[in-house]
Amino acid sequence: MTALLPPVVAQARELVEPVLRAAVDRLDPLTARVSAYHLGWAGAPGLPSAAPGKALRPALVLLSARAAGGDAEECAPAAAAVELVHAFSLIHDDIMDGDEMRRCRPSAWRVFGEPAAILAGDALLALAFELLLEHDAPGRSAAARSLSAATRGLIRGQGLDLEFERRRDVSLDECREMSAHKTGDLFACACSIGAAAAGGPADLVAGLAAFGAEAGLAFQLTDDLLGIWGRPETTGKPVGSDLRSRKKSLPVVAALTSGTAAGERLARLLAQPGPLTEHDLRTAARLVEDAGGRAWAETQAKHLLDSAGRRLADARVATDVREQLLDIARFITTRDY
Amino acid sequence: MTALLPPVVAQARELVEPVLRAAVDRLDPLTARVSAYHLGWAGAPGLPSAAPGKALRPALVLLSARAAGGDAEECAPAAAAVELVHAFSLIHDDIMDGDEMRRCRPSAWRVFGEPAAILAGDALLALAFELLLEHDAPGRSAAARSLSAATRGLIRGQGLDLEFERRRDVSLDECREMSAHKTGDLFACACSIGAAAAGGPADLVAGLAAFGAEAGLAFQLTDDLLGIWGRPETTGKPVGSDLRSRKKSLPVVAALTSGTAAGERLARLLAQPGPLTEHDLRTAARLVEDAGGRAWAETQAKHLLDSAGRRLADARVATDVREQLLDIARFITTRDY
Repeated sequence: MTALLPPVVAQARELVEPVLRAAVDRLDPLTARVSAYHLGWAGAPGLPSAAPGKALRPALVLLSARAAGGDAEECAPAAAAVELVHAFSLIHDDIMDGDEMRRCRPSAWRVFGEPAAILAGDALLALAFELLLEHDAPGRSAAARSLSAATRGLIRGQGLDLEFERRRDVSLDECREMSAHKTGDLFACACSIGAAAAGGPADLVAGLAAFGAEAGLAFQLTDDLLGIWGRPETTGKPVGSDLRSRKKSLPVVAALTSGTAAGERLARLLAQPGPLTEHDLRTAARLVEDAGGRAWAETQAKHLLDSAGRRLADARVATDVREQLLDIARFITTRDY
Repeated sequence: MTALLPPVVAQARELVEPVLRAAVDRLDPLTARVSAYHLGWAGAPGLPSAAPGKALRPALVLLSARAAGGDAEECAPAAAAVELVHAFSLIHDDIMDGDEMRRCRPSAWRVFGEPAAILAGDALLALAFELLLEHDAPGRSAAARSLSAATRGLIRGQGLDLEFERRRDVSLDECREMSAHKTGDLFACACSIGAAAAGGPADLVAGLAAFGAEAGLAFQLTDDLLGIWGRPETTGKPVGSDLRSRKKSLPVVAALTSGTAAGERLARLLAQPGPLTEHDLRTAARLVEDAGGRAWAETQAKHLLDSAGRRLADARVATDVREQLLDIARFITTRDY
């Protein structure tokens, strides 16, 4: 099923793109070039520019500001800052994970080399804080604190991910904790930083963050499912890319720890030395499904979505904003890209 | 000549180290391990812990706070934040430049691998902003803005450095601009952020930053001289390490653009393919000297030191603080490590 992007996402992209472009213009020529390529605005020799990212996080920032009575213009720097931290993490993660493709094109490090890609990620992270701090919002410091804590959280998630690659005994709880940090922390920040910047009350900010943490984990579960069963034409990544790199994603770990015969066969298949063949990949995907990993992940995502919705009700978020946040959360769990 | 570290540097180290240790304790296990190794607190299998860094920048932050009437305890988070940004930049620069040694030990990426070292650098950068922003100082936002702009500046310097590696026609002005960003921007921040955090007047903050920018460039010139003529026992790096990597440091570019016969011979030597032999390295060092690159760099460093001193007088920095800042600046240009 192809889910449509809620209209607020396009509005957020229009609001944020000029801010992002002006920010990237401040960079030195090398990191500006790498950043413009990664963000889809420019090509590279022999490579076209690309469709821009989905701008889900800026849309969440925009709605979060509205929840606290803030306006769109006012929260544009915070929305851009969150998108910059997201871009930084993608550029660096692609290097660390050795991922060669991103949005149907070679990833930044494959085009510009590792040194330039490391530096471009650094530049976007520094720029995120600069944008946020030079903007005169009532809750500027609180917003910047939220972004720095979320950045450390997503780094913690990636650190756990790197450690898990070397271990065979990762539990489902550990894997869930890793994903909660790696994806949930920045989502929680995106869903609350607009309200924080507008000077909204602490319980509203906390309720929005709790919604974001759960919606973010649902996003990651869907991403993990797409990493196994997604179509390359829509995901922009090779078939079964997560299985190929033996990534310990949530559905895989759910299967490995299921205590089923299929789970044991999956463990033996992933433990064999050398690259996996196309046949191995198809077998592995089937074993994850037979061991219940796929159904578990789909059910978890649904539960998280329900719980996230209740967080918004508990925090008394206004009905129109709540509906739009839930539209995005529903898109997140039904998308095919 | 071996210069002694001014006493304020040891005081600053004592003040800042507990803050740094508590900050690194917040990180995930992987990035905490890499950070503790890089900062000299811990070894790695087969490798000892190391002497800690010189803590020059924290000492400058401490003096900068005193210049605005701030106290030591108050400015400790800012001092730690500047040191964290410095650590982040060293860890990432070593990866980008392929430098295998740092302070007489293998650099972090050689011990833990590139992914872990990239992530540890990211973590320290995020942590720097977190420390600064959660601390309740009158000029907290101004201080964080200064740090984010300085971070972007040092990234600009490294970006130019990476671009210069591929060019043969780098001018002395371009090289100076690169060094001013790469080293001067964070020094300028270190020398002014304490005053900014204490809520000091804008002209004092600006005067201290101007002092720091010039002292920082003098530091870089001295570093460049040590990169050619420094003794491995004291610098912790191989003999002629900058020449070996054909780095376009200031004395080298001064020699290359000198219009002398020695400069032309140096250009031909550095342009030859393949690694340089020990004999080539000795010849190259002699040619930099014959072309006037060494004398130029030494004179420049002296001029910058004089000018930096005048900046402090113009900004009416109190005599005792001024003397201590100048002690550090003199140490910077006469050190042998």
